[in-house]
Amino acid sequence: MHHLLTLDGLPRATVVGLLDRAQHFADTPGDFDALRGAAVCTLFFEPSTRTRMSFQLASQRLGAHVLNFDVSTSSARKGETALDTMRNLEAMGVRGFIVRHHDDGAVARLADAARPETALLNAGDGRSNHPTQGLLDMLTLRQAKGDDFSRMRIAIVGDVKHSRVARSDLHALRALGTGDIRVCGPASLLPDDGTLADCNVTHDVDEALDGVDAVMTLRLQRERMEDGLVDSLEDYHRHYGITAERLRRAAPDAVVMHPGPINRGVEITDEVADGPRSLILRQVANGVAVRMAVLERLLGR
Amino acid sequence: MHHLLTLDGLPRATVVGLLDRAQHFADTPGDFDALRGAAVCTLFFEPSTRTRMSFQLASQRLGAHVLNFDVSTSSARKGETALDTMRNLEAMGVRGFIVRHHDDGAVARLADAARPETALLNAGDGRSNHPTQGLLDMLTLRQAKGDDFSRMRIAIVGDVKHSRVARSDLHALRALGTGDIRVCGPASLLPDDGTLADCNVTHDVDEALDGVDAVMTLRLQRERMEDGLVDSLEDYHRHYGITAERLRRAAPDAVVMHPGPINRGVEITDEVADGPRSLILRQVANGVAVRMAVLERLLGR
Amino acid sequence: MHHLLTLDGLPRATVVGLLDRAQHFADTPGDFDALRGAAVCTLFFEPSTRTRMSFQLASQRLGAHVLNFDVSTSSARKGETALDTMRNLEAMGVRGFIVRHHDDGAVARLADAARPETALLNAGDGRSNHPTQGLLDMLTLRQAKGDDFSRMRIAIVGDVKHSRVARSDLHALRALGTGDIRVCGPASLLPDDGTLADCNVTHDVDEALDGVDAVMTLRLQRERMEDGLVDSLEDYHRHYGITAERLRRAAPDAVVMHPGPINRGVEITDEVADGPRSLILRQVANGVAVRMAVLERLLGR
Repeated sequence: MHHLLTLDGLPRATVVGLLDRAQHFADTPGDFDALRGAAVCTLFFEPSTRTRMSFQLASQRLGAHVLNFDVSTSSARKGETALDTMRNLEAMGVRGFIVRHHDDGAVARLADAARPETALLNAGDGRSNHPTQGLLDMLTLRQAKGDDFSRMRIAIVGDVKHSRVARSDLHALRALGTGDIRVCGPASLLPDDGTLADCNVTHDVDEALDGVDAVMTLRLQRERMEDGLVDSLEDYHRHYGITAERLRRAAPDAVVMHPGPINRGVEITDEVADGPRSLILRQVANGVAVRMAVLERLLGR
Repeated sequence: MHHLLTLDGLPRATVVGLLDRAQHFADTPGDFDALRGAAVCTLFFEPSTRTRMSFQLASQRLGAHVLNFDVSTSSARKGETALDTMRNLEAMGVRGFIVRHHDDGAVARLADAARPETALLNAGDGRSNHPTQGLLDMLTLRQAKGDDFSRMRIAIVGDVKHSRVARSDLHALRALGTGDIRVCGPASLLPDDGTLADCNVTHDVDEALDGVDAVMTLRLQRERMEDGLVDSLEDYHRHYGITAERLRRAAPDAVVMHPGPINRGVEITDEVADGPRSLILRQVANGVAVRMAVLERLLGR
Repeated sequence: MHHLLTLDGLPRATVVGLLDRAQHFADTPGDFDALRGAAVCTLFFEPSTRTRMSFQLASQRLGAHVLNFDVSTSSARKGETALDTMRNLEAMGVRGFIVRHHDDGAVARLADAARPETALLNAGDGRSNHPTQGLLDMLTLRQAKGDDFSRMRIAIVGDVKHSRVARSDLHALRALGTGDIRVCGPASLLPDDGTLADCNVTHDVDEALDGVDAVMTLRLQRERMEDGLVDSLEDYHRHYGITAERLRRAAPDAVVMHPGPINRGVEITDEVADGPRSLILRQVANGVAVRMAVLERLLGR
């Protein structure tokens, strides 16, 4: 594994190996030396303080020097291409790039042009991939439900069409051999391009939740409303929002997840988000551990 | 001491203990290990590069990983509450939060909602508290005037009404049993809510300065003029500005302090600010030492 | 050497000593301890993410604590002078300042007012000096062409008039006793103040390139066009752009340099910039090594 661009097609053993190592980091406080003396750079063409800080903490705990380059707010970078930026930082000695970009495939294109010793870590590109989110969601599921994914029933609810989180979750769930993957959302927010080929697709959330072990909700961007893909946030919540009542359809010990940041009262009620079945903050915690595992794998000595 | 939210009501022994430890840090160059491996985050809802950097240096000298989160300039944080932000960073493993907020009590409210292992450090909230400024001012006074505060005569001059610095100074001066606390400013800039109950209040700066050991001046925000609380900066300076001439009323070895940044020629003349009696840069230096002492106390192993 | 403000007048032995030490850093991966526990601050009154990051990496590899202060985007700094900012940071314990400023001489003025233990490192002031760029260009030349500068023929092409890079290159080339320094550009972009006294000046780029060992191109700011100093970017490129064809006039093993960021197709074609004779990324790599050598010299134990 030279870069981490996607979870699509990753062997089960690779995913399990990363999860095992991440669990070790989650269980072990303090710092490690795997990246001591190495320089990594967060290169975000789309701003996200939260994700950036998670990667920053992961890098720091491994002993790396971290540079933060928020291209969206940098006045200096106008007119320079992403490629020139990467090449300059490579020349300065940066070995790892944690890249978020609004364009599908942008991170893979950078990886194609990178030096042999450079590692690219996709922190989200377009609607395509957010592999560390997929991994942290699997770690969270495994902690709650054990490691036999073949017996799991998982519902993914929301705007799957525009979600790189959903795509990476699907890649990871497949890699781990998940038994029953259900996908639910309004027709306008579900992809019709084969992404959901092996999933049980429904527009009825009660049907989707019936007996499931976990509900993975997705963030609804406000612009979906502006684009006419949903009528209103209230309407979306009425049909697809996860409420305590709706959750009674799921298995008695079902858990609820969300990649954050939450639109409270839209995708999920406060009661559920802050309730005993919510794993949302556990997901955030696992994010640092998973990113440490990936960084160590790509850049560790 | 679990958080540092206010100096109000803090026992004398606690204040003295922190000052003693801060003096040790001020006297000892180089780095310490008390926060090695711990992550702290500066969470500033009101921007202040200077105060943020002081806390950052203090954290770095103790070996911590430091994240800087300037909420006021973060494009990503719109719509997320301060509480959600803190909870997410807590989940990532951040143990200490250094928070500045424009609302009175905002930091205390975050502390109420924090995890048991989290420590909050108030870096200024509304007009209420700026406890590390109070402590660094006491350290500065003690270095210059010895540790018997009962014999000290201190004048606080300026916009006390809107000043969290003045309130924290008053808390600290009382905790240390200061003999004579005088407060001086125009009626429009003095609080009438009991804050000054045990102080000698006057509107005449010459009276306030008569024989004092130290003059603590306060920053005058330009908006006080816009709000009609002072006629003009010139007028304010004529009546309350600290000049070399006016300072002759004070004790021969009186010192002058200011929390910065200075409005030169308004609260204080260049001659006094840069003169031999000014402790203004000493205050800045002591700021790092005091913040190290507080961080070690709250987060040290 | 207490500060590094300019290369003008620096003894040859000092330049060679810095280049030798930089070469050692370039050859040796990993971190060093020379600045362990010391705090340095990048203080940029003119934004430049690339240069700032190069200095940041250099400081981190030496073990320093690094503060980044981008004055141009800091909302908090309005109204405070550069001098007050430096004095406050000095008081906090910052020992090294890496300063970029739009005004000629601004860094030298700060150096005059600094404490005896403070070191200033000029990261570019006005059109006057950019000494670390001059040094990294010399290191790059030396790696490619050996250390006998007296036999070298060097052409500097472009907007020399407004370029601090060109001035520092000229200082360094003279210190090393370069045999033949040619300067080429349109009359509107060449200084007429004695700067080029000992250079072979021409407006004909083919003449300038004839038989040279190295071509140092300079960035053309778009504002030169707005100011009427060049007719158009196309026109500039036609007359002064470095193309593969034009480069045939130079020595067979001639190299091409550019301080970056490149205006592709203006100062230089893609073919040359990305071709085998380009040392542009080598310059970037040498930047970190040279800055380490300077920081160690000014601030090392």
